[in-house]
Amino acid sequence: MFKIIKEDKQTAARVGEFRTKSSIFSTPCFFPVATRGAIKGLSTKDLEEIGIEGILVNAYHLYLRPGIEVIKSCGGLHKFMGFNKTIITDSGGYQIFSLNNLRKLSDEGVTFQSYIDGKTIFLTPQDIIKAQIDIKTDIALPLDECVGGNSIAYKEALKAVERTIKWAKISKDYFDRNKTDGILFFAILQGSIFSDLRKMCLEEILKLKIDGLCIGGLSVGEEKNLRYNILSFICQLADKNYIRYFMGYGKPPEILEAIGLGVDLFDCVIPTRLGRTGTAFTDEGEIVIRNSPYIKDERPIEPNCNCYVCKNFSRAYIRHLINVGEMLGVMLLTYHNVYWYKKFIDEAKNAILEDRFLKFKKYFLSTYRETKNDN
Amino acid sequence: MFKIIKEDKQTAARVGEFRTKSSIFSTPCFFPVATRGAIKGLSTKDLEEIGIEGILVNAYHLYLRPGIEVIKSCGGLHKFMGFNKTIITDSGGYQIFSLNNLRKLSDEGVTFQSYIDGKTIFLTPQDIIKAQIDIKTDIALPLDECVGGNSIAYKEALKAVERTIKWAKISKDYFDRNKTDGILFFAILQGSIFSDLRKMCLEEILKLKIDGLCIGGLSVGEEKNLRYNILSFICQLADKNYIRYFMGYGKPPEILEAIGLGVDLFDCVIPTRLGRTGTAFTDEGEIVIRNSPYIKDERPIEPNCNCYVCKNFSRAYIRHLINVGEMLGVMLLTYHNVYWYKKFIDEAKNAILEDRFLKFKKYFLSTYRETKNDN
Repeated sequence: MFKIIKEDKQTAARVGEFRTKSSIFSTPCFFPVATRGAIKGLSTKDLEEIGIEGILVNAYHLYLRPGIEVIKSCGGLHKFMGFNKTIITDSGGYQIFSLNNLRKLSDEGVTFQSYIDGKTIFLTPQDIIKAQIDIKTDIALPLDECVGGNSIAYKEALKAVERTIKWAKISKDYFDRNKTDGILFFAILQGSIFSDLRKMCLEEILKLKIDGLCIGGLSVGEEKNLRYNILSFICQLADKNYIRYFMGYGKPPEILEAIGLGVDLFDCVIPTRLGRTGTAFTDEGEIVIRNSPYIKDERPIEPNCNCYVCKNFSRAYIRHLINVGEMLGVMLLTYHNVYWYKKFIDEAKNAILEDRFLKFKKYFLSTYRETKNDN
Repeated sequence: MFKIIKEDKQTAARVGEFRTKSSIFSTPCFFPVATRGAIKGLSTKDLEEIGIEGILVNAYHLYLRPGIEVIKSCGGLHKFMGFNKTIITDSGGYQIFSLNNLRKLSDEGVTFQSYIDGKTIFLTPQDIIKAQIDIKTDIALPLDECVGGNSIAYKEALKAVERTIKWAKISKDYFDRNKTDGILFFAILQGSIFSDLRKMCLEEILKLKIDGLCIGGLSVGEEKNLRYNILSFICQLADKNYIRYFMGYGKPPEILEAIGLGVDLFDCVIPTRLGRTGTAFTDEGEIVIRNSPYIKDERPIEPNCNCYVCKNFSRAYIRHLINVGEMLGVMLLTYHNVYWYKKFIDEAKNAILEDRFLKFKKYFLSTYRETKNDN
């Protein structure tokens, strides 16, 4: 599945190729997020135009609505969504655990209240794998327990790791005993900022003959230096032949940092989420297009961008659309932001291939300015 | 500008061709509505794919936001919006008069409070023409006074007609004294359901050497039989060489009726507005896609439709998107609805060309079912 094409000499960055039953994509790569089976503001035709290689969909949300049965009877998730590239389905562990007081965990599974109708739902790790097999995902993920932040106690993190390992075993066992038709199985690494927990978790899940490694429980509130330390530790420890997927990450400078530490794959709501609130990505950083400097700005969002939006529309027009609440504004900004993210990561990939990744990173960080108040 | 290609022998329907500085389109034709400079849920790329020949934009809304100066400095409305076909700009008479207690009329113009910041604004008929010239519209419309409904008093309607005529003259005079670079001028016919008022208004505005005739003040609450009577009266009375544009109309059976009475052009929020609330147009009528019968419906919205949406997505998927509030649902439904409307009117046009319009109308009405509760 994963083939390393090139390893950087100065950093842990690498270029690879990954094959699923639906497509082959090269890494580093980013997947936009289609939580409920759609990217907010983009059609699959847009994704195709942009050249998106894969998306992340949330199996937990689909379980609640429209229900797995509906998608199954419509021929699976690819057919349902009209998307023929790689789909990763997240188990929803992160979402369920965000419910806090509305859920109860046991080794057998998770009990929670549906946010739709308040109904109590009990899901086992097996249920969640079954759902992903039923909808014919490309990459299935097991239920995991995610704890996070700076303040996390070791004891709590240990308990979560133990449960995550246990559930990964149950899940993989269930997966192996069923007809999976080319579906791949990734396991999720937990352990917060504690290197011994990460090590333990890694060793256990690698025993399961998995197809890829998800790095979970990071970027959930911990300090950045702790994050990069533990990320570096993980990437050094993990067999290099596993694709490394950093879940739910990040801003462009953060992504470059993670690529340099050896991460291959990202999913990321940032280009779509910021698009909805009126922030655009440019080579010089993020700009809040709603703001007054852009009122008569005839330039495209990013003058060096070749996307449909930059070739056809001005900042002034997009600012107007966002300001009057026209959904086309969100559609155009999201299109550009996703295009820009892909282009940015493609450039990082090319830099690795051409032995100039560190130089690229340095130059990028010297010109890129994050917007402080981007809401 | 307007050339009649074919006249139906059994009805007053006709096929024509109209030329503006931006494009040539054949009639009967419908223009979707881009009130604030965007069709809700569609990009101009979508409009191009669908084959849309023109749109209606509201000059009054653009006057308030982003302001005429912004559009002017961005090279005009076509460049601002990235749309290169025909644009009609509505004067906003209908919108301003909908404000009721928030506006005051005099022969000199209209005073109203901005719905954005409450500021008092005074606009003359000249201001409104100037705005439309500044943004380089294709077809400019004068300020008019719209009164409507069954309960309208003759005296009130007379006063509105007199003011509409007065404003049309002032507007055309201002238009003629300025550099208009190929912009056309249509006048708006008022007079409610009173044939003598319609006749008087028509005679007066035709004296102004206008490029087309807008039929206003209908479909504003009056009974259908009164509407069709007065519409028939107008079309019989008006010189056949003027294009006849029925403003703000209508549902498919209503459009067929109006085509049969001699209307050439329609603008219509219905396909977009109903798309936003989850109603789809099919050859058999309107279906409320949010409803439970479609939960596992694998068929496209309309099996005979060749649009992007019908070729790629099921009713079940679109229902899911609408139900979870994903904007892609609105985008897809709106795309299909606008496509369907265009196809429907093209079919009516072809029927006229092939001397089978009445047969087509009869067949259409026998199979088409309006949804009663489409909200």
